[in-house]
Amino acid sequence: MIKATPREQIEQLKLGTVDFIAESELLKKIEKSVATGKPLSVKFGADPTRPDLHIGHTVVLNKIRQFQDFGHHVNFLIGDFTAMIGDPTGKNETRPPLSPEEIETNAKTYAAQIFKVLDPEKTTIVYNSHWFSKLSPADFIRLSAQYTVARMLERDDFTKRFQSHTPIAIHEFLYPLCQGYDSVHLKSDVELGGTDQKFNLLVGRELQKAYGQADQQCVITVPILEGIDGVNKMSKSLDNYIAVVDSPKDMFGKTMRVSDQLMMRWYELLTDITPAQLAQLKTDLKEGKKHPRDTKVNLAKFLVKRFHGEAQAQAAEEEFNRMFVDKGLPDEIPLIEVFPTTEPVGICTLMTQVGLTETNSEARRLIQGKAVEMDQVKVQDDKLKLDLKSGMQFILKAGKRKFAKVVVK
Amino acid sequence: MIKATPREQIEQLKLGTVDFIAESELLKKIEKSVATGKPLSVKFGADPTRPDLHIGHTVVLNKIRQFQDFGHHVNFLIGDFTAMIGDPTGKNETRPPLSPEEIETNAKTYAAQIFKVLDPEKTTIVYNSHWFSKLSPADFIRLSAQYTVARMLERDDFTKRFQSHTPIAIHEFLYPLCQGYDSVHLKSDVELGGTDQKFNLLVGRELQKAYGQADQQCVITVPILEGIDGVNKMSKSLDNYIAVVDSPKDMFGKTMRVSDQLMMRWYELLTDITPAQLAQLKTDLKEGKKHPRDTKVNLAKFLVKRFHGEAQAQAAEEEFNRMFVDKGLPDEIPLIEVFPTTEPVGICTLMTQVGLTETNSEARRLIQGKAVEMDQVKVQDDKLKLDLKSGMQFILKAGKRKFAKVVVK
Repeated sequence: MIKATPREQIEQLKLGTVDFIAESELLKKIEKSVATGKPLSVKFGADPTRPDLHIGHTVVLNKIRQFQDFGHHVNFLIGDFTAMIGDPTGKNETRPPLSPEEIETNAKTYAAQIFKVLDPEKTTIVYNSHWFSKLSPADFIRLSAQYTVARMLERDDFTKRFQSHTPIAIHEFLYPLCQGYDSVHLKSDVELGGTDQKFNLLVGRELQKAYGQADQQCVITVPILEGIDGVNKMSKSLDNYIAVVDSPKDMFGKTMRVSDQLMMRWYELLTDITPAQLAQLKTDLKEGKKHPRDTKVNLAKFLVKRFHGEAQAQAAEEEFNRMFVDKGLPDEIPLIEVFPTTEPVGICTLMTQVGLTETNSEARRLIQGKAVEMDQVKVQDDKLKLDLKSGMQFILKAGKRKFAKVVVK
Repeated sequence: MIKATPREQIEQLKLGTVDFIAESELLKKIEKSVATGKPLSVKFGADPTRPDLHIGHTVVLNKIRQFQDFGHHVNFLIGDFTAMIGDPTGKNETRPPLSPEEIETNAKTYAAQIFKVLDPEKTTIVYNSHWFSKLSPADFIRLSAQYTVARMLERDDFTKRFQSHTPIAIHEFLYPLCQGYDSVHLKSDVELGGTDQKFNLLVGRELQKAYGQADQQCVITVPILEGIDGVNKMSKSLDNYIAVVDSPKDMFGKTMRVSDQLMMRWYELLTDITPAQLAQLKTDLKEGKKHPRDTKVNLAKFLVKRFHGEAQAQAAEEEFNRMFVDKGLPDEIPLIEVFPTTEPVGICTLMTQVGLTETNSEARRLIQGKAVEMDQVKVQDDKLKLDLKSGMQFILKAGKRKFAKVVVK
């Protein structure tokens, strides 16, 4: 546990956040905590239907870990109550209710991942079905009486849907109230989330007041991390993510592929760099005192070390060097996914398919000119047939500068 | 029980209604009922917080009675579930939750009144707390998923409040859904209400569909009756009502005070007059074949007979004649309410106060000219003092045409 004055805690906790509501209140809470020795109750909620964490999630987990390092306690809330309902309209058959067993399995998957960042000794995993199953219909109506339709429609996505006449079912208004009621039940001192959760977190704060709690939770939001494409938010469905459980090799390789600009953003959000160090790094890069590639290697090593340890970080770097640097491969090779084939496919056809050549005859000429390599080995035969099986991957090089990493789905 | 073909039932039931959704469906239901001997399930809901029925309520009760006369069964629903919640915001201390005992008392008060119109043999009194207390929060969320925010905001009063930025609490969206769920639970074939209930009744119809019921309830609305002022809807708070439990004398007297125009409306909505008879009556009045006063007496007698029986109707007419007609009093005398006095008040002061004279000296001159009567007795003394005690009432006549009925509060 890090010894720190309330003011020092605040300064550290503020770093990298977007909303910090409200500093004065949190300072008072921390002062009281320091005086009484009673840790703050920090809440973070997760949806048990998607237990695969990517490093975007770790932005908020890092912030929560800071609270733990200062001695505070975390309630990691599994929102299983609504997950057990599934799609309440009954129209979406692809979103069946989760069984208690599935939720338990997902919760365990979560635990395995979050404890790469969080301190298990200072974390309680709680399930909101425990209190919601005890609520009566009358309690539910009382809960929904605490908020108005107009204020709920102020939430960004509701505003947009309402204005564009996209239906909002009434139960969707109940979900933020349920999430807020979790804070009432847990008597949370602080709740954290991404900036997209700001509205919901504030509902919790207001409901605590409506339910007569003297202190309301502070609300802290952190930025949403961009994915490896540098454009969209990191998400599994956009396939621009690094999973917390990705192999050291993948984690290292994917990080090396991000743009220099995104690299700085990741430094800011994913590492423990201080604002002063970050400013210095930017200056050094600008003045050529540091090389972007080395800086990116350091970031990649940092991430692998965090999730897989020091030895793996070292090994990943060495493998990367062996694969790319030592053999003259560029850092960024376009990744091309292809489907497995039932019959072997010709090398020339494949090269054209993955965009290395315009035509099969161009491919043939290059092979005959000894200008094509597969995993650093020269291709000798332009009649070569490849049996593409799921999971295979290799690097094709055509001429001096064209590369493609072929991944068979 | 009245023997009638399905088509005859429909024609009779349609009379005097505003919405009749949908005739073809109701015809099919009635045909099936006639064929199988199974009565239709007719729903009517009432709010147990205000069990005082006035004759405005009997417009819908009369229509429901017609269903019973055709052999159908009525579920008279006491909406005690929400009444037991009271004001869910907890802000309105004047609207405390009703206890089960209070609800039971109010239900008995209802029963005593509705069975002046409905057939107790064909009526079941049901309480929606019986099924709502068994609903889980998850059931509640499923219920609220069946309706959209936009559609709920189409309800007239919600539209107005939303546009004028008057807060709508979210639980207010749940109440129409609860009312609709009652129809799901009861598998109602028909629900009736005033025109102001149309939206809520249609929600029931739609929820039955959403919950997979093959047949949905038909929705019948009846006009809202104007009160004795002929302007506003009859309501207790506007003091323009005739209570179902009003004395024969009051019921007769209040009816005699309504305008000739309102009289025709009451004939249409409160009596069993047929459209043909109503048209004939209008013609007769227009051509002078019938006198408005006699027509109004018939209406008054009809109402007293309905709620108090034939003998009371006769007696009320006779008393009315003795009081007004035989003694040359007009049918309509303005009623003036005054407060009890701690000291006796002078007759001249009172006359001016109730608007019979402009000044006390005008009153004195009239008394001295033997032109003032109190309950048909000449006032001899302009120094007369009256001890106005609560409950007293008497008629003052000043000159030949000025009257006031003084009622001490």
